[in-house]
Amino acid sequence: MSEQSRLSVKDLVARRKAGYALEAPFYTSPKIFRVDMDVIFGRHWIYVGVEPDVPEAGDAMAVNIGPSSIIIVRGDDEEVRAFHNVCRHRGARILPEGKAIIGNVVCPYHSWTYGLDGDLKFAEHMGPGFDPKCHGLKPVALRSVSGLLFICLSDNPPADIDDMAAAMAPYLAPHDIRNTRVAFQSDLIEDGNWKLTMENNRECYHCAPNHPELTIPLFAYGFGFAPDALDEDGRREAERYAELMRASHARWEAGGLPSREIEHLADRTTGFRTERLPIDQSGESQTMDTRAACRLALGGLTDKSVGGLSFWTQPNSWHHFMGDHIVTFSAIPIDESHTLVRTKWLVHKDAVEGVDYDLQRLTEVWDATNRQDADLVAIGQQGATDPAYEAGPYSPYTEGLVEKFAAWYIDRLAASLP
Amino acid sequence: MSEQSRLSVKDLVARRKAGYALEAPFYTSPKIFRVDMDVIFGRHWIYVGVEPDVPEAGDAMAVNIGPSSIIIVRGDDEEVRAFHNVCRHRGARILPEGKAIIGNVVCPYHSWTYGLDGDLKFAEHMGPGFDPKCHGLKPVALRSVSGLLFICLSDNPPADIDDMAAAMAPYLAPHDIRNTRVAFQSDLIEDGNWKLTMENNRECYHCAPNHPELTIPLFAYGFGFAPDALDEDGRREAERYAELMRASHARWEAGGLPSREIEHLADRTTGFRTERLPIDQSGESQTMDTRAACRLALGGLTDKSVGGLSFWTQPNSWHHFMGDHIVTFSAIPIDESHTLVRTKWLVHKDAVEGVDYDLQRLTEVWDATNRQDADLVAIGQQGATDPAYEAGPYSPYTEGLVEKFAAWYIDRLAASLP
Amino acid sequence: MSEQSRLSVKDLVARRKAGYALEAPFYTSPKIFRVDMDVIFGRHWIYVGVEPDVPEAGDAMAVNIGPSSIIIVRGDDEEVRAFHNVCRHRGARILPEGKAIIGNVVCPYHSWTYGLDGDLKFAEHMGPGFDPKCHGLKPVALRSVSGLLFICLSDNPPADIDDMAAAMAPYLAPHDIRNTRVAFQSDLIEDGNWKLTMENNRECYHCAPNHPELTIPLFAYGFGFAPDALDEDGRREAERYAELMRASHARWEAGGLPSREIEHLADRTTGFRTERLPIDQSGESQTMDTRAACRLALGGLTDKSVGGLSFWTQPNSWHHFMGDHIVTFSAIPIDESHTLVRTKWLVHKDAVEGVDYDLQRLTEVWDATNRQDADLVAIGQQGATDPAYEAGPYSPYTEGLVEKFAAWYIDRLAASLP
Ligand code: FES
Ligand code: FES
Ligand code: FES
Ligand SMILES: [Fe+3]
Ligand SMILES: [Fe+3]
Ligand SMILES: [Fe+3]
Repeated sequence: MSEQSRLSVKDLVARRKAGYALEAPFYTSPKIFRVDMDVIFGRHWIYVGVEPDVPEAGDAMAVNIGPSSIIIVRGDDEEVRAFHNVCRHRGARILPEGKAIIGNVVCPYHSWTYGLDGDLKFAEHMGPGFDPKCHGLKPVALRSVSGLLFICLSDNPPADIDDMAAAMAPYLAPHDIRNTRVAFQSDLIEDGNWKLTMENNRECYHCAPNHPELTIPLFAYGFGFAPDALDEDGRREAERYAELMRASHARWEAGGLPSREIEHLADRTTGFRTERLPIDQSGESQTMDTRAACRLALGGLTDKSVGGLSFWTQPNSWHHFMGDHIVTFSAIPIDESHTLVRTKWLVHKDAVEGVDYDLQRLTEVWDATNRQDADLVAIGQQGATDPAYEAGPYSPYTEGLVEKFAAWYIDRLAASLP
Repeated sequence: MSEQSRLSVKDLVARRKAGYALEAPFYTSPKIFRVDMDVIFGRHWIYVGVEPDVPEAGDAMAVNIGPSSIIIVRGDDEEVRAFHNVCRHRGARILPEGKAIIGNVVCPYHSWTYGLDGDLKFAEHMGPGFDPKCHGLKPVALRSVSGLLFICLSDNPPADIDDMAAAMAPYLAPHDIRNTRVAFQSDLIEDGNWKLTMENNRECYHCAPNHPELTIPLFAYGFGFAPDALDEDGRREAERYAELMRASHARWEAGGLPSREIEHLADRTTGFRTERLPIDQSGESQTMDTRAACRLALGGLTDKSVGGLSFWTQPNSWHHFMGDHIVTFSAIPIDESHTLVRTKWLVHKDAVEGVDYDLQRLTEVWDATNRQDADLVAIGQQGATDPAYEAGPYSPYTEGLVEKFAAWYIDRLAASLP
Repeated sequence: MSEQSRLSVKDLVARRKAGYALEAPFYTSPKIFRVDMDVIFGRHWIYVGVEPDVPEAGDAMAVNIGPSSIIIVRGDDEEVRAFHNVCRHRGARILPEGKAIIGNVVCPYHSWTYGLDGDLKFAEHMGPGFDPKCHGLKPVALRSVSGLLFICLSDNPPADIDDMAAAMAPYLAPHDIRNTRVAFQSDLIEDGNWKLTMENNRECYHCAPNHPELTIPLFAYGFGFAPDALDEDGRREAERYAELMRASHARWEAGGLPSREIEHLADRTTGFRTERLPIDQSGESQTMDTRAACRLALGGLTDKSVGGLSFWTQPNSWHHFMGDHIVTFSAIPIDESHTLVRTKWLVHKDAVEGVDYDLQRLTEVWDATNRQDADLVAIGQQGATDPAYEAGPYSPYTEGLVEKFAAWYIDRLAASLP
């Protein structure tokens, strides 16, 4: 630990051992956390929400990312834009985190008034030498990927989001995100570094011992496994799963539902992966009985058994798109040992709670799973903080995507450090 | 932000741009906070309370300023003295914050016993080589300005407090602070740097949109405004105010009540400003109906409409003296992002609660105003912490006194840094 | 304070003035706290609990010391062993603090399974290249001193624990710790540096003004006093105590109970002191009426009036062994200004609550005393944090053992710093 703490971030990056967890300072050092906020969260595309968060002109949402706060607002021209949530007068934070319906962006301190396009429209008492044109809200790059909102705090956002957007469009289209509604949002603060949150998300090695609810609809096999290690029962289950995959993919692709894996987790600046995975039993949805939670199908989907299209992005999101609802997650760092996991459950925009869906049934699998994952992230952080911590080996079978996350992260630091 | 954080305090002081808010590190850096505690709060006169806090011999009050704790105590000779609240044996803090009635200053740990003059009177088991004379409480400079208590933690307190005391004496005398009583004290912790608390106090640009209660008795015009910017109604109001000022000042000065502005906010080590300002409607007091809250007049005042004598000091106080009561405020830094605002409401020492005054009516305007200001200070701190923060321009009309506070502060740092 | 904070730890160690409290940074600096955790708590024998905490095979207890967590577990061979509580896979903390009954040590994250001897017995999906032998739990040195458990986080634990164990064996044997049971444990977090907790423990100068309960059974004289300072009453009391000591020691030693002082607090790496001290009135136990709290005598003791055998170790424990029960304390640093004091009350293993002892009566003296000491430690920390703090002189009579603690501490730092 003391040797590590004497090493520079650059040295720690350089000596990272592939196939092994990261060394402790990556999870515990406030200095590396600041590097993460600067390099990773300051210069990459960060998933922050969905277009249905701001469905109409004048709908606004403030999202905090570490010390930064961003206003996302739909203008009178129906465009969604993002701005720094910092008044150009004496710098007050203008909107509190959460949603608002507004005519203008008005600072509560001295009422400086900005249009929905960020221009300063009104500032009293500033005298004749003052130029409102130089005091508009500072814009933030924003991109909607089929209705999923990504922002980038850098002035040079990575251009390869175009490739991701193009590749994902046919996968996402059938679920028609823009015609959904946020039925519920949960904010859960995990007591761990954001990378522990992400690593936890990238494997299902921990599912069997920890997620009794999630493993009803979800097959852990989708995340890799060691075939030799299986017993008789295990082998039979794995074969059943392989056959189901083959049959489902054939049926979905034939029916115009792109399903095959696209995997660019570690070979791009804007890393991502997608694949449509079968669901167990009825095959419909990630619920306790695997049946759809909402009676209204998303988009034009007529097949109820479309499994779950999963979509993962570096550095901070994962999503499951089913036939009846969508669950979408963002991980937002708070400090080196705390991370906000924000989960939104989306249903068809015309779905009525209590009529078309029951909120409890809709949310219970992932609500329980999130809490279980939070406990795992917490013991991961405690362990990383222990001077006896030593980065151990990833399973080559069940932790391949964790390795891809770690490799992407190290690669991005290496590319950005001076 | 990263450029700024690489700059030294000295560089940041040197490049301060007049007429603009301070750069972010002045509000957010723990290092600059330590400089503030050393240079500003360690070497200037700090307002801590009033003589009526310790009206009689043996009355003591412990006040904490950051990591320092100070005992203020009235001795048997009726003198008020201040001492460091640190035992000379093993250093225990002797008195908890707040008030006490004591015969001696007795350390709770091993009962070392000091007189009200700080001398060590008794220390058991210390043996023959021990000299009690070398182990008295360490004194702290204290000065009563017509009953307002200022302390200075330095061994060389600024001498110009004499000028302030002399200038203020005729203004304060009519309100006879020494014959008042603390009817109520509120301690409110604001989530912001102490300089945001002070800047907020030095302007009324924010009053109209934020202080519905305070703007009943108080005219925002007293703090400056842009005449061109006014509409018809505004111009009429401003003229009414100007006329009221002229008439009131003439009447007050004629009646022996000094009222004219004295302004030394930025041109002295012990910066201050005073002015007697009219109150709206009945002209009596800062209450919801502008009528006196207490039936007993202060001092020998016979005129009920004496408006409010305001008194502001650098770095940490403001006060309003009316005919029936006094409201007095101190701002005490806690850390770089938290500040205690301590408010005391004083009434005539013979006034009886429930008979001569109603506590709710006495305190409601400033209690509400304090909470509103705390919210503004909090969003100011959130904004200053945002990497997108950029110091914006002060209004030349409504924020002239904020500029004077910032200029004084920068000046004092410049004079004190090596 | 600013001069001190510019000094290196080495300089502060070098200029320590014997007979005086430590300088402020030893109590307040996060940097010195890290040195303490490394040098003192990382390389010395730390008291963590008793064998009766893990009486049977499969009984485990996790103890946290700062950022380190240690599993103490009794194996199937009845041996007690200690391991780092950190999984060798991705480093999760395996057991939560506290006690558990286990068959194996199973990590909750991905179910890696270790035997009670630390060997990795099972790890799924790791593939053929993986060697379980290289991934066992990391061992921690553990030593049972007549049933008192000490661990050392260093790979080179000080060898002189052997001397302490040998010296203490005859003193501890009559109280037969291994045949006791933990009747109650209290965890109290004190708001002060661990050295203030220890200094507080090493003197009874503060007893008379602070411990009305403890001073019923305990004589403050046992900790030293200034004979000249006593009045008539005091001298009579001191003589009564001296006579009682003489008579008790003679009786105890004659009856095979070693009682004489052994004092190696400052002249050894593993510093300790012991002495059997008389108890007032009935002479039986540290209770409110000085009578035994438990009807079952410990070990083979037939004499009810065996006073209290006290045992103190550097850096973090103290213990009182009476005829009917044992009270045993460990101080565990949390950060530079917080310390956990863990107290265990032990009774004969066959004693039944409500029948043989009343829990309230058993615990009330030390429960009250602990709370009083926590208040004293808190004001000590507040004072040490005050810039006006100046290290004062220890009493040569009543604070001799405090000086020995400080001298040992400074000596150990001096020996360990490069
Ligand atoms: S800070 Fe926003 S209007 Fe003044
Ligand atoms: S610390 Fe005050 S008397 Fe000992
Ligand atoms: S971290 Fe312990 S089994 Fe994976
Ligand atoms: Fe999980
Ligand atoms: Fe205000
Ligand atoms: Fe004590």
